[in-house]
Amino acid sequence: MRTLTKDLKEKTGEKVVLQGWVNARRDHGKLIFIDLRDRSGEAQIVVLPNHKEAHGAANRLRPEWVITVAGKVNRRPENMVNEKEENGSIEIEAESITILSAAKELPFETETKLNLDTYLDYLPLAMRRTSARNIFKVQASVIQGFREFLKIREFVEIQAPKLIGEDAEGGANSFNVEYFGHTAHLAQSPQFYKQIMVGIFERVYAAGNVYRAEKHSTSRHLNEYTSLDLEMGFIKDHTDVMEMETELLKYIMNKLKKECAAEFAAMEAEIPEVPEKIPALKLREAQKIIQKAHGTDCSQEPDLEPQHEKWLCEYSREKYNSDFIFITHFPLSKRPMYTYEDPADIGYAGGFDLLLRGTEITTGSQRIHEYDKLVEIMKKRGLNPEKFSFYLQSFKYGMPPHGGLGMGLERLTARLLNIENVKEATMFPRDLNRIDNLLST
Amino acid sequence: MRTLTKDLKEKTGEKVVLQGWVNARRDHGKLIFIDLRDRSGEAQIVVLPNHKEAHGAANRLRPEWVITVAGKVNRRPENMVNEKEENGSIEIEAESITILSAAKELPFETETKLNLDTYLDYLPLAMRRTSARNIFKVQASVIQGFREFLKIREFVEIQAPKLIGEDAEGGANSFNVEYFGHTAHLAQSPQFYKQIMVGIFERVYAAGNVYRAEKHSTSRHLNEYTSLDLEMGFIKDHTDVMEMETELLKYIMNKLKKECAAEFAAMEAEIPEVPEKIPALKLREAQKIIQKAHGTDCSQEPDLEPQHEKWLCEYSREKYNSDFIFITHFPLSKRPMYTYEDPADIGYAGGFDLLLRGTEITTGSQRIHEYDKLVEIMKKRGLNPEKFSFYLQSFKYGMPPHGGLGMGLERLTARLLNIENVKEATMFPRDLNRIDNLLST
Repeated sequence: MRTLTKDLKEKTGEKVVLQGWVNARRDHGKLIFIDLRDRSGEAQIVVLPNHKEAHGAANRLRPEWVITVAGKVNRRPENMVNEKEENGSIEIEAESITILSAAKELPFETETKLNLDTYLDYLPLAMRRTSARNIFKVQASVIQGFREFLKIREFVEIQAPKLIGEDAEGGANSFNVEYFGHTAHLAQSPQFYKQIMVGIFERVYAAGNVYRAEKHSTSRHLNEYTSLDLEMGFIKDHTDVMEMETELLKYIMNKLKKECAAEFAAMEAEIPEVPEKIPALKLREAQKIIQKAHGTDCSQEPDLEPQHEKWLCEYSREKYNSDFIFITHFPLSKRPMYTYEDPADIGYAGGFDLLLRGTEITTGSQRIHEYDKLVEIMKKRGLNPEKFSFYLQSFKYGMPPHGGLGMGLERLTARLLNIENVKEATMFPRDLNRIDNLLST
Repeated sequence: MRTLTKDLKEKTGEKVVLQGWVNARRDHGKLIFIDLRDRSGEAQIVVLPNHKEAHGAANRLRPEWVITVAGKVNRRPENMVNEKEENGSIEIEAESITILSAAKELPFETETKLNLDTYLDYLPLAMRRTSARNIFKVQASVIQGFREFLKIREFVEIQAPKLIGEDAEGGANSFNVEYFGHTAHLAQSPQFYKQIMVGIFERVYAAGNVYRAEKHSTSRHLNEYTSLDLEMGFIKDHTDVMEMETELLKYIMNKLKKECAAEFAAMEAEIPEVPEKIPALKLREAQKIIQKAHGTDCSQEPDLEPQHEKWLCEYSREKYNSDFIFITHFPLSKRPMYTYEDPADIGYAGGFDLLLRGTEITTGSQRIHEYDKLVEIMKKRGLNPEKFSFYLQSFKYGMPPHGGLGMGLERLTARLLNIENVKEATMFPRDLNRIDNLLST
């Protein structure tokens, strides 16, 4: 019966069987020390020369070999106790060692700092490092918190297809798929499907892959990422969606405090506080603030540049003590066709972006729910409503006022942990040059 | 402040605001009755002629119109009480009705039985029917149960990419994607990635879309479906995976009993009991049983035909009183290249299929964890190991014995609810002829 390293301390004096990877082997002549890693933590094994077979096996061990160790849990001699390690007061005296799997010589020491290219070339090995394990444990908690909160709020989980005909976000950035003699596309968002499902369940969420065939290579874009999407019916306007997002973020941050405090500490990152009410500025107000503080006139721009987002987050930190800030009311003409116009601010979207620590992490809005209006706007934008007849059915047969948002899981993870490049917060990032291996040119 | 219909009974005598869809309007001359549907249930609205404006609005209402109703919750007259309905003892006397969204005339009455083509043509409307809402609520609980159980068992959730280079299951059935001047593929499973992640977290699960470019059109195949995948390290053999699946299924069925009893009752389906130990037969034993009972000699076949699966499930029901049965030890040569050979049964896979109510719902196995063996088998099967170098890294640098399984969410949902065609258990099924709309030929 295997014992996990996290449970060792309760077993001092007992015999145990451990399994895991060799983190390091230190050869002190007769004594051999092995640091063993399993999914729950680490432990120190000591191999004495009187256990001949174990000692022989230990002699062969190298980093990343996979082994089974049987032995006795002892308190370490006082001068060997390391209070900083979880199992720093104990060690396992090995009685037998079985090699489950040998490893070839490593291309680098596991915990060494790597440049991004080397990291990506060696992902299956490099993700074994503590930092990567921390990042992806945090990521798993974030997506789980997203689902848990929405389930509590009576949202129903949906499975949105990724293989689609026409795209909600416009065709320019979608990948083509050969589909039985036709051309299909990879969805840039679950937009149409979550809206359709509002007609069935009122409140729905989806978490799945989306695809952007964007040719630019930046530290914040991915060609395939995980989108956290929600959509809710019977709203009064887009501020209902902003309030739901605020509550959602509070829930996720509380969950991270409970489940991932150690990972954040190890990454030297802080879990952001979500204010009772996240500050919100209209884009035009935000542009004035930028001009006043930095002298840059961006009042004619329909969107924020990365530098503007950074400035606004600094402003939010200083003025409101908040890592989060909503920017609302972008010009309607630059938002997707399904976006609702704020009747109190003609020409501007009843919608928002949410910024966190210098970067946009969410886009959301109220959506058009009236069939005739939606058909009209499609025509105005040069789209053929017949191509969207499936989507339009929902509106033809009665849809409530509704709105929703989308949030990139990897980008959110990166911002939470202050990771420079979103690729490090993505298990298997795809970009212009790489699908696992470099694409040959 | 909106009240949901499920909360009405506590509000008898009070004023409430309801929002939802018109299920039906019954005009009794002066009295108009409206059945209102919201995400939580239904309620009857009565509109009296003395509320002139409400009465005028009610006169215009048709099925699927979306409305807000303000009114008072009254007990129904004794002769109007319907004990079978949740809100059958109350009605809401409307004081005002606001139309949020009108609907065009419906192509069919909402709850009418539809043939599959009509159902698929009108999905956004047809999924509003009670049966579809039941199906997809059950589906949401199944996937949530899958994740909850595995989290409890210390599995880490991973995000597996769907855009891939080489496919784990062989290239014949994979869709091609135009990827920046290269050809990428849509993953048929997260196989490579979940194995790689065993090297990082020992135990991982993934739930996401997978793609099969299969040209046959059957009642049990989909070209895009949701795969529930798990992979676990440090197993003794494939029976550890079978035991984990048994515990997983127990958890999911218990959750369904708690959360979805009403949906199963409405669908006239029973939640299957998971036996303490699910019966297991080797394929060769199963084939002998088929020959004895049905006279069909399938002993030379490397796999089971649909009819064989049906017979074996009948056998399992009768002999073991179990809706589930494992079939193990398929010929190794017909299983994927990463499959482990059972050292106690040379030539046969240390792996299994799980059958439920006549259909295979899971395939699983122990996997090869030794680098040299994996390279050798690739060569034997005519695969170029260099193309798989990314995947092979994991094995090069030390992997424990491990195994896992994959399970189609939609097919499992269909079997649980005794739904004939898996497309009805799929929100937006893709097949040879259809991506939402029919593909023009």
